[in-house]
Amino acid sequence: MSTDHDYNKESLEIHRKIKGKLSISAKTPIKNMHDMSVLYTPGVAEPCRHIAKDKVLAYDLTMKHNTVAIVSDGTRVLGLGDIGPEAALPVMEGKALIMQQFAGIDAFPVCLDEKDSDKIVEIVKAIAPNFGAINLEDISTPKVFHIEARLIKELDIPVFHDDQHGTAVVVLAGLINAMKLTKKTKIESVQVGIIGSGAAGYGIARLLHAYGFRNVVVFDSKGALHNGRTDLVDYKKDLVIFTNPSDFKGKISEFKDAEIIISAASPGALPIETIRAMKKPNIVFALANPVSEISLEQAKELGIDIFGTGRSDCPNQINNSLCFPGFLRALLDLRITKITDKMKIAAAKGIAASLPESQLSKDRIVPDPFEPSLAENIKKAISGL
Amino acid sequence: MSTDHDYNKESLEIHRKIKGKLSISAKTPIKNMHDMSVLYTPGVAEPCRHIAKDKVLAYDLTMKHNTVAIVSDGTRVLGLGDIGPEAALPVMEGKALIMQQFAGIDAFPVCLDEKDSDKIVEIVKAIAPNFGAINLEDISTPKVFHIEARLIKELDIPVFHDDQHGTAVVVLAGLINAMKLTKKTKIESVQVGIIGSGAAGYGIARLLHAYGFRNVVVFDSKGALHNGRTDLVDYKKDLVIFTNPSDFKGKISEFKDAEIIISAASPGALPIETIRAMKKPNIVFALANPVSEISLEQAKELGIDIFGTGRSDCPNQINNSLCFPGFLRALLDLRITKITDKMKIAAAKGIAASLPESQLSKDRIVPDPFEPSLAENIKKAISGL
Repeated sequence: MSTDHDYNKESLEIHRKIKGKLSISAKTPIKNMHDMSVLYTPGVAEPCRHIAKDKVLAYDLTMKHNTVAIVSDGTRVLGLGDIGPEAALPVMEGKALIMQQFAGIDAFPVCLDEKDSDKIVEIVKAIAPNFGAINLEDISTPKVFHIEARLIKELDIPVFHDDQHGTAVVVLAGLINAMKLTKKTKIESVQVGIIGSGAAGYGIARLLHAYGFRNVVVFDSKGALHNGRTDLVDYKKDLVIFTNPSDFKGKISEFKDAEIIISAASPGALPIETIRAMKKPNIVFALANPVSEISLEQAKELGIDIFGTGRSDCPNQINNSLCFPGFLRALLDLRITKITDKMKIAAAKGIAASLPESQLSKDRIVPDPFEPSLAENIKKAISGL
Repeated sequence: MSTDHDYNKESLEIHRKIKGKLSISAKTPIKNMHDMSVLYTPGVAEPCRHIAKDKVLAYDLTMKHNTVAIVSDGTRVLGLGDIGPEAALPVMEGKALIMQQFAGIDAFPVCLDEKDSDKIVEIVKAIAPNFGAINLEDISTPKVFHIEARLIKELDIPVFHDDQHGTAVVVLAGLINAMKLTKKTKIESVQVGIIGSGAAGYGIARLLHAYGFRNVVVFDSKGALHNGRTDLVDYKKDLVIFTNPSDFKGKISEFKDAEIIISAASPGALPIETIRAMKKPNIVFALANPVSEISLEQAKELGIDIFGTGRSDCPNQINNSLCFPGFLRALLDLRITKITDKMKIAAAKGIAASLPESQLSKDRIVPDPFEPSLAENIKKAISGL
């Protein structure tokens, strides 16, 4: 098995060799002066005139209908932190590659040399005419919530915050199948602990609530988010409104009755002793990347029934790449302007159902991203709403 | 011969059919989980770490080195005027197509829903990390001069204003060969009239001066730009400093000794009677698009020796597409940060020399854009400085 060190070395080599993972190519070549006159001037004036009269025609006459901006300011890239817009480019190019490969989307990295949230909003609004959808990526919390909220309100194209909603959709897809396998049916009472209250933790908590979970506690580094906490920023206060019904005030190590643990934090956030002290956490997703909070070996030793990580070299990869290509495909094709919780739940069901019942096992609760029906299933699930 | 009506019809049809002229594709596919781990997470963290330490490495490890932003606010598109950013998209996609086809450049249209010049500067600066060069396009004057000047000063990548400099380079290339054919050798005394003082007229006047022309008069709709005019905006005042040495105060119809007329204005700006009243204007470029100021038939009737237009269906097409692909190729490959007049003159010479002496004639003073050596010749001419 390759180690992270091997991947790093090979990755640097291939990035040096190909110098950029994307190419912007012609859908139709200019072969002669006639083509030039039709695809460029003077003929090109005609589609321009049509769009000038009705700008919605840009969807029919330009690349807008199939083009996504992957917007980042480079402030929270992978587990690397604030590494700046240039250093975020390889990740955004990788996401664009995945969108093209798995869903035929033309995606372009927009790594911004600007950290102010309101200025980022103004920039994204200004470049929006080129795009059919916006994918926000690797922007630090809490400012990303402000950026997302303003853009949703002020733009007429959909805005998808992948770190938040993509992660939540795939976690829910994994839980749907994991609960089926472990015969947990009472979603309103099953006890769930979410470790980490960044974009992912926030998105997961919100989507689980929308799906029907009613016994969820979210933990940050100081313990459970509860009504008595006076140190909470606004979005964490939002979480308290619909989570932690029994007003649990302890740390994750004291949350002993949890049946499901989802950690979207950092390697140190979920020590092995914490799990060992619990009574029955038989579903654990340890999503920190690249080093997960609990290793596969530790999970086996702990006797966890169903264990998922974000890693591609472990079983049950709970990774956004299962969701975002198909979700964005659906947003573009269905000309959706605002994303709803129902769409996210439908997508989760679509992902869960992409793995045929016969292939479902404790080591395979989600399909892999190469499953050819995946994007289409997500789109069908959303279009069926 | 196809009419503009035919081109318009065919153009609309093909734009409807292909729905966007560009595609963003993978230079290397993701075939399996191993590729996913190398091109995306966890391996992609390694090139990110390298760039975070030294952002110049973005040129070696991402698409930046070969990517150009074609930036427009849609305020002065072709001859259509202020049609907005969505309606400008077909033109910018067309330019990107030409850059890819003739120079292997990955170019992306950035049509901005923002008209304030300082805000446009801030937006372009913010998106600059993704790009190796900026091409400004179809932005109204005079604000485009302010945008260009600020971006040149504040960015570390080159900024090319095609309407201004691309046009000027191709006009100079055409003049170099036209003057050779008509045996005009005294560039310091040959009398030149430039009609139109927008971006193109301004750029042409500046470049002709840099090349050595010393007897140039620029005309706007009110007549010659001269010292006595009190109605001139700043950039027109700049032109008076180095043009019109004899302080000519009349209209173009009174400019009877001109040997060379270059019109970058509108169909009505150069009536046939004006040319008829002149003594010897044996080189006339009528560059308005799509309808040129003087038609080919009129030029023949007038006995003009060498007649050029912007049209692809007439001899001597003085069109930016001869310049911008190769010029941008040179900017990217030579990692040029600021464009100089010397580079523009070198490019003009490179274009002029791309047409072998044996093929040079009064109906063929410039190569066509399909000349395979063109981009390489421009790059060589610039790299030889």
